[in-house]
Amino acid sequence: MNSQEQAQLIDVAAEMADAARAVILPHFRASGLIAENKMPANGAAAGYDPVTIADRAAEEAMRAVLARRRPGDAILGEELGASPGRSGLQWVLDPIDGTRGFVTGTPTWGVLIALGRAGAPDGPMLGLIDQPYIGERFLGGFGRAWMQGPGGRRDLATSTTRALDQATLFSTFPEIGTADQRARFEALSGRVRLTRYGMDCYAYALLAAGHVDLVVEAGLHPHDIQAPIALIRAAGGVVTDWQGGPAHAGGTALAAANPVLHAAALKVLSQEV
Amino acid sequence: MNSQEQAQLIDVAAEMADAARAVILPHFRASGLIAENKMPANGAAAGYDPVTIADRAAEEAMRAVLARRRPGDAILGEELGASPGRSGLQWVLDPIDGTRGFVTGTPTWGVLIALGRAGAPDGPMLGLIDQPYIGERFLGGFGRAWMQGPGGRRDLATSTTRALDQATLFSTFPEIGTADQRARFEALSGRVRLTRYGMDCYAYALLAAGHVDLVVEAGLHPHDIQAPIALIRAAGGVVTDWQGGPAHAGGTALAAANPVLHAAALKVLSQEV
Repeated sequence: MNSQEQAQLIDVAAEMADAARAVILPHFRASGLIAENKMPANGAAAGYDPVTIADRAAEEAMRAVLARRRPGDAILGEELGASPGRSGLQWVLDPIDGTRGFVTGTPTWGVLIALGRAGAPDGPMLGLIDQPYIGERFLGGFGRAWMQGPGGRRDLATSTTRALDQATLFSTFPEIGTADQRARFEALSGRVRLTRYGMDCYAYALLAAGHVDLVVEAGLHPHDIQAPIALIRAAGGVVTDWQGGPAHAGGTALAAANPVLHAAALKVLSQEV
Repeated sequence: MNSQEQAQLIDVAAEMADAARAVILPHFRASGLIAENKMPANGAAAGYDPVTIADRAAEEAMRAVLARRRPGDAILGEELGASPGRSGLQWVLDPIDGTRGFVTGTPTWGVLIALGRAGAPDGPMLGLIDQPYIGERFLGGFGRAWMQGPGGRRDLATSTTRALDQATLFSTFPEIGTADQRARFEALSGRVRLTRYGMDCYAYALLAAGHVDLVVEAGLHPHDIQAPIALIRAAGGVVTDWQGGPAHAGGTALAAANPVLHAAALKVLSQEV
């Protein structure tokens, strides 16, 4: 793929994120939405999901961009499922990652857009995390990572923190995964300098930007993790599952700022507790 | 106090928050700050505190505003301590509340400004929470609460959620307080619909804005809680300690969206576990 083709794909991703922003923002913190619709603690399964409207409309808006600009590409979307393509490229979309953050008003949810070759063993090549309310966009791929936000545009690079006892660790909530997974997570949490929760996909963006050293999660779908993988790799980090294998098909994820820190964290997470 | 005096005090608080913003923002996510200075897990006590520079400079900037516009008022600041006054009014300042959020790049820290009568048994009359990076300001007092942010200006009102099993609960981190306090917190957490962590003082702002129903914390100083108290009260909420007494002197805090929900949460928190 030449640099012109890469630039076009980046431009398409940005146009998709713009379209999603415009659709989602009117629903964020809309008082009627919050007051009338309550969300089950497990996120979405039972009852009415208050972000359904914004979630679906945003995926439709992103698909409309692809239909116009990249009609030959395949799509895997959280809301509307899989659509076949003929180009060999696949977009993986999560219009609102972080439903619980969205309904509680925290600007930690995001629009996730990833692009990869269908069936590629090494995962996606391009990833975008957008936080519409703050007005921040983190984009990484083809060997570059950068962000645009309230402080302007800047290139991203992960931190040089190499030792666990110097590292900051983020996860969405302390009740992570199964009992065995939780025990492994707690073993790691006990080794780091600081553990924080509640950032949803925004934690991956902060890792790519060098502010956070480790993000560990479980129970992920491909659309949750593919954009973070491409973004973090382009900024210098490493993302695998908790056994050191590929993470882009979902399940567990260990994102680390650099290979040395990744190896140290993997050693703890992959051990029997 | 007449409405003209109230308006002047609100204007002074806003000018102080503007001054703090200008001083702090250049240090937030400054890569050198993050890379060179590491923070102990307990927040600040041991070693070098990476936000010392921004914290002190912001308090000095706010004090300079007061010296010019309200020279007769007393000041209690997190960084520079107590300064006596002669007007009977006291400003309580926390230039950067949420040190751990600040150093990990999360826009959950805030500038806290409260105003009260020195020694008043009912706590502060005016409170301001400012999040400079997002560009959001939450202000409440004298019977009104409002915010200004990326979505414009709007009045604030707390939620009408009355039942614990419908409520969302926020706290800064799950390892709250002493062992006894943690057990009480977990008893409450087990009764609510959803518990989230990691929002620092921003959780109180979200409660005032109606997105979050309960915020519970322990180990607070007066400068951590006085601005949230005045803001949340002005928006319709209730803030006490875990025994139902005044919270403005620090210690534990239970902030609730309305009196009915407050009573239900207080019943759980105040019981022996």
